[in-house]
Amino acid sequence: MANCLVAQSGGPTAVINASLAGVIRANQLNALYDKVYGGINGVEGVLEGKLYDLTDLPGAEIELLKQTPSSALGTCRYKLKRGNDADFERLSEVMEAHNIDTMFYIGGNDSMDTVDALSEWAANRGSHLRFIGIPKTVDNDLVPVDHCPGFPSAAKLACQITHATRLDYDAYTRPEVFVLETMGRDAGWLAASCCTTGDVDLLVLPEVDFDKEAFLTQVQKKMDESGECYIVVSEGAHYANGSYISAGESANDGFAHAVLGGAAQTLKSMIVDAGIAPRGVVQDLSRAARSSNFCQSLVDVTEAYELGLSAHMRSADPQFTGMVVGVRRGEAPDGGYNAEYFAGRASEFANYVRTFPAEWILPDYQGITEEALAYFRPLIAGEPKLLYANGMPATITPFNRR
Amino acid sequence: MANCLVAQSGGPTAVINASLAGVIRANQLNALYDKVYGGINGVEGVLEGKLYDLTDLPGAEIELLKQTPSSALGTCRYKLKRGNDADFERLSEVMEAHNIDTMFYIGGNDSMDTVDALSEWAANRGSHLRFIGIPKTVDNDLVPVDHCPGFPSAAKLACQITHATRLDYDAYTRPEVFVLETMGRDAGWLAASCCTTGDVDLLVLPEVDFDKEAFLTQVQKKMDESGECYIVVSEGAHYANGSYISAGESANDGFAHAVLGGAAQTLKSMIVDAGIAPRGVVQDLSRAARSSNFCQSLVDVTEAYELGLSAHMRSADPQFTGMVVGVRRGEAPDGGYNAEYFAGRASEFANYVRTFPAEWILPDYQGITEEALAYFRPLIAGEPKLLYANGMPATITPFNRR
Repeated sequence: MANCLVAQSGGPTAVINASLAGVIRANQLNALYDKVYGGINGVEGVLEGKLYDLTDLPGAEIELLKQTPSSALGTCRYKLKRGNDADFERLSEVMEAHNIDTMFYIGGNDSMDTVDALSEWAANRGSHLRFIGIPKTVDNDLVPVDHCPGFPSAAKLACQITHATRLDYDAYTRPEVFVLETMGRDAGWLAASCCTTGDVDLLVLPEVDFDKEAFLTQVQKKMDESGECYIVVSEGAHYANGSYISAGESANDGFAHAVLGGAAQTLKSMIVDAGIAPRGVVQDLSRAARSSNFCQSLVDVTEAYELGLSAHMRSADPQFTGMVVGVRRGEAPDGGYNAEYFAGRASEFANYVRTFPAEWILPDYQGITEEALAYFRPLIAGEPKLLYANGMPATITPFNRR
Repeated sequence: MANCLVAQSGGPTAVINASLAGVIRANQLNALYDKVYGGINGVEGVLEGKLYDLTDLPGAEIELLKQTPSSALGTCRYKLKRGNDADFERLSEVMEAHNIDTMFYIGGNDSMDTVDALSEWAANRGSHLRFIGIPKTVDNDLVPVDHCPGFPSAAKLACQITHATRLDYDAYTRPEVFVLETMGRDAGWLAASCCTTGDVDLLVLPEVDFDKEAFLTQVQKKMDESGECYIVVSEGAHYANGSYISAGESANDGFAHAVLGGAAQTLKSMIVDAGIAPRGVVQDLSRAARSSNFCQSLVDVTEAYELGLSAHMRSADPQFTGMVVGVRRGEAPDGGYNAEYFAGRASEFANYVRTFPAEWILPDYQGITEEALAYFRPLIAGEPKLLYANGMPATITPFNRR
């Protein structure tokens, strides 16, 4: 029997390790592969032959892995580029050297494009190597899934911090604005999810070109009405000409994406400068939002784990390559939420950005529609029973640090 | 029988409502007072006669109150100043008008000074009015207690975010620094608590005058050794001349304290400008740290509630005024942590700032001693069984918003 390889790529999430746990556990339940190797630090480490044998990871460690945030194998920003035959050859060499015929790649849009490119390349040269994708991204911007593992937990934390900071804000009588900033470069899913708790007065998304005058008019109106204005802004919010509203520095993350941040600070200054409120408080969720283990959504961690199982199980079919597993929204007999698992061509997942639907956005920064709320609610439902040690949710030592 | 009044002041915490719940519940268990009035928005609202009858708050609401973060009565930044007889007269009028003879005031240093000043004023004029303090502050800077309600939960959240963001940081191979900023104007308790998880490389406290050169030498050393440097900085960190290292704007919070923030950003820029790392990530805990309900410490919420009970119970003694209840650290038969409740003169609590002990600070920004870790560990222990609704810890509608 051949072996398999599983690696993680892109930004960590709260449940990306649950998908990893799913692949490892599935092979313990039905050993389609002799060994399950973990690729250290994504393709970057794999190209250097850095593998970690996960085959016999004890059940107790698998349980802790499911509740360990961030990427336990380590991640990378390095992109296997379409047409970069040298990298593809090198990857192929590493896989052959370890008798690996199947690679599971857990990642976002870019990684799903890598899965597509690699399987195409393998097909073109008649190689038996297979490449299978498992999606994750807190941005929730993948098609054709209902949502992406990692997003529900990020949304749950964002909702909890929104509600807690709103209560903190509400404790005061003095006039000030509150501005919460979330991740979300091109898609405002995470920012929009904050509206689920009913605490948000104004919402600024990347999907709507920012109109300073119109926005300040709404802030003034809220302050006049209630003396309060709680605002949520997505880091990627921008003007009609495409320039980001954030005043922050610009850097580059290796994927030729601008590094954002500072939109909340900019909005606060804008409001104070306009004389609408004498002061404001800024809260930037930043990294805390994407890989916390203390606010995992039970729906999310369950689905992430089961997608890992599903990818492994489907790979029993030797034709299963260039495919990605995903979740669609089905309906339970009682009308409630029910996850339906499917698999689709990686090309359908790769390089499309699913933005927050225009028809779900209320005009004048007033938040989101009832339909949008109905979309979010079941995703943040339920809490896993976390194992604690010393007052903290217990975690495992990441494999890239062993 | 007379009535009593309970009010909250200063910055909210994760458990300040548990102390409020304790006062309300104690009176349901033993009605020392006919009515328990809540003062809306601290003394500010009380002076305007804004009271809310809490006497018969149902048990189910009391349970939710214990897990509702922020100040459910609302708070204020208004300070009843020593010698401001007009305010004292007005307060006395409001209390007499509602047949209130005892006021419980839940707050920090400033509020404990208010309790002291009010009881002194009442004694001087032979008034029967009594003033009793219940401490809270996330800054943990009160004497003569072991620790302050609110701090353990803030520390627990800070530890959880430290660990989660450290795992996120560790997932990458690229050279960058991570800088986490916590609240802590004059005392570095909250920043120091982040070391409890073993994740912090360098710690910058207000207790040690900041030496840029010495600090950058340590950052360089960590980067050379491991390619990583995870830094925690307290917002109040400052140079020997007293100027804050934060580059942020300066405002005023009404208590003549500068409004801080931006220390982490400053350190990051310093490191990048020095060419030690090409980039850095900044995480500011900001408001999220102080009033989250999803990371309450069981020790904290229990003690905050019991301090509310204790203040009420001790007030059965008609001489009990100008006093503050608090917790000292005792030892359980098994050598473990055990809270001991006591009461002391408000003057002993007021206006002293207990900074983080110098003997607990390791040189060269290397963190804290084993003794300090032993202090923190029991405080973050245990998690209350939270009641959830719609995927969120359930909360009550604040009384100042009803």
